Amino acid sequence: MTYLENFEFFGNVSKAQDFIHAIKPGNFLFSLVISYTETCEIPGITFAGADKDSIKFTPPADAEYLYYGNCKTIDKIPMTPDGKPTPAILTKTALESSSIPHIVINSGSKISPQLPFINTGLSYGRNILVESAMSDSQVSQAVNYGRIVGRNLASMTDCLIIGESIPGGTTTALAILRGLGFKAKVSSSIPNNPVELKNAIVNSALERLTSDDPYNIMAEVGDPMIPFVTGMLSAASEITKVMLAGGTQMTAVLAFASKIGFNEKNTAIGTTSYISNDDSANFKSLVSEIADIPAIAVNPGLENSQFSGLRAFSQGFAKEGVGAGGSIIASMIKSGNNSTNFLALAEKEYHRLFTLL
Amino acid sequence: MTYLENFEFFGNVSKAQDFIHAIKPGNFLFSLVISYTETCEIPGITFAGADKDSIKFTPPADAEYLYYGNCKTIDKIPMTPDGKPTPAILTKTALESSSIPHIVINSGSKISPQLPFINTGLSYGRNILVESAMSDSQVSQAVNYGRIVGRNLASMTDCLIIGESIPGGTTTALAILRGLGFKAKVSSSIPNNPVELKNAIVNSALERLTSDDPYNIMAEVGDPMIPFVTGMLSAASEITKVMLAGGTQMTAVLAFASKIGFNEKNTAIGTTSYISNDDSANFKSLVSEIADIPAIAVNPGLENSQFSGLRAFSQGFAKEGVGAGGSIIASMIKSGNNSTNFLALAEKEYHRLFTLL
Repeated sequence: MTYLENFEFFGNVSKAQDFIHAIKPGNFLFSLVISYTETCEIPGITFAGADKDSIKFTPPADAEYLYYGNCKTIDKIPMTPDGKPTPAILTKTALESSSIPHIVINSGSKISPQLPFINTGLSYGRNILVESAMSDSQVSQAVNYGRIVGRNLASMTDCLIIGESIPGGTTTALAILRGLGFKAKVSSSIPNNPVELKNAIVNSALERLTSDDPYNIMAEVGDPMIPFVTGMLSAASEITKVMLAGGTQMTAVLAFASKIGFNEKNTAIGTTSYISNDDSANFKSLVSEIADIPAIAVNPGLENSQFSGLRAFSQGFAKEGVGAGGSIIASMIKSGNNSTNFLALAEKEYHRLFTLL
Repeated sequence: MTYLENFEFFGNVSKAQDFIHAIKPGNFLFSLVISYTETCEIPGITFAGADKDSIKFTPPADAEYLYYGNCKTIDKIPMTPDGKPTPAILTKTALESSSIPHIVINSGSKISPQLPFINTGLSYGRNILVESAMSDSQVSQAVNYGRIVGRNLASMTDCLIIGESIPGGTTTALAILRGLGFKAKVSSSIPNNPVELKNAIVNSALERLTSDDPYNIMAEVGDPMIPFVTGMLSAASEITKVMLAGGTQMTAVLAFASKIGFNEKNTAIGTTSYISNDDSANFKSLVSEIADIPAIAVNPGLENSQFSGLRAFSQGFAKEGVGAGGSIIASMIKSGNNSTNFLALAEKEYHRLFTLL
């Protein structure tokens, strides 16, 4: 089985093969944008942390784990309350197995990671249920700084992969998608996606909108990750290939980018099949509705794992995040590994981690 | 005239041509490490700022100018009290004219630049005349973080160029060189190099040494730039070519690297002829004494400029800094420009700046 058999294409399908063909001979660079929205503190909205107080440590801990193989800010790697691990396990396995370098960018994380990272000075986002997420000038700064970082990183690589770690980010993504006029249903890190809760929050937040200016919509109901990554995409896609690595949250980036401008010819979105096959979301149709770009979903074959913690991803827990899907796609394109090879590597890493802990 | 005629080789001369040959077809990445030592606050030690209170703004302002073409932290670009501009003018001209990307790293600058930069959380260094520059653990962290950044950046490029901006840094460099047992005389940003003052400071600082452990010597009499860049060099030179861009301060990096280990085969040092021809210093013999690497000095031909602000560099003011020499060398290798072409571009930038101001 070749890795291409683990890929599913949608969006502009005819462009997907061209995109893979274009990036295959070149170098990849993975960038992880960590951020925070107080929206994640609404009970029941995310399980990205062992308990309420530890959610804010998840983004820096994800970043530390990618660098060190363990975390500094917290003792163990980020987990759900019942012990299911962060998708960063998949990202780390993918990047290491194919020697793809990576760099961490802090765009509004409440806690800084204990490693060298690109700093932006941007603040975390406020809870969109109760107040504006950001000021208009914060949105502008996020976009502008994103452009600087995107231009820089793009000039160092043939394919810039952008992933994120922002707990609660699917809710703000849903708000942005709806606020910008797209018919979005979104995925979640929880199998019984708390659709009603999310919709209630988003509907309430959208009532505050008084303008159809995309920057103003972002300020009201977004988070600091979306405008920053959009700025990165906007500048980087003028120079090199860009793969947005993620599900719902990257469709929100794509939606905002469709308003402020980006180069569709150099852009693709890459995620896991757990996102694209999620019936509670509408990832496939959403991508096509927003932009004329290819989308790739990879099936990492985790349902065949001997470890319940890895099987969980295939059962709807933390289906995506930390750029896992896009990283796996890039690693397969670069190394030629298929899902069987990938699973063996992921199990080795999983075993190392949980023997260590 | 080809650009090679603007180069002078020393150190391991036979390796210099190989180094140029190896890097010519590849990509370059310039990294600027900004830092601070309170040693610069000793009156008369540096002119890297319009007055005493503005010295600390020079490193972030240099970084901002490279990104934006103007500064955010201060109104004008960094200048000496009598209006001679920062060597960042040369760096910016070099990088832009040859489309070399760059990234800023804060390793102990007192002031953060107003742009996205790689953050390390490292503190500025103390005045070595009166106290230890850093703690031993700060030195270790600087080296370790330097290694992480070096490994990362190295994997994104075929040649990593490392420059610095740290006012007063030639004095701490002199202290490190002597502390590590090298016969150093050092250059300065001032034509009448305040040799006696520097020697008095260094001699006093060296009296505090109680150990010949290089980490301990760094903690006593160094600054946060030297161990960080040494860590970068140590990790990056295992992966790719590295050019240390600077004079005295980069020989201090080389001296520390010779103690903690680095790959000589992948390393070169690049500076301006204003450094290598400085009789008050001994750059050429120092490089050979420390390591078996090639050194390249470029004559940018600024003595032929119509602008006194550019001619000043050739007259001993700010002979080097912000990686100017290494950037010019890299830009000439990449673009094929010789010093005549370079001077025309530098004059255009100078004119833009001083018409704008």
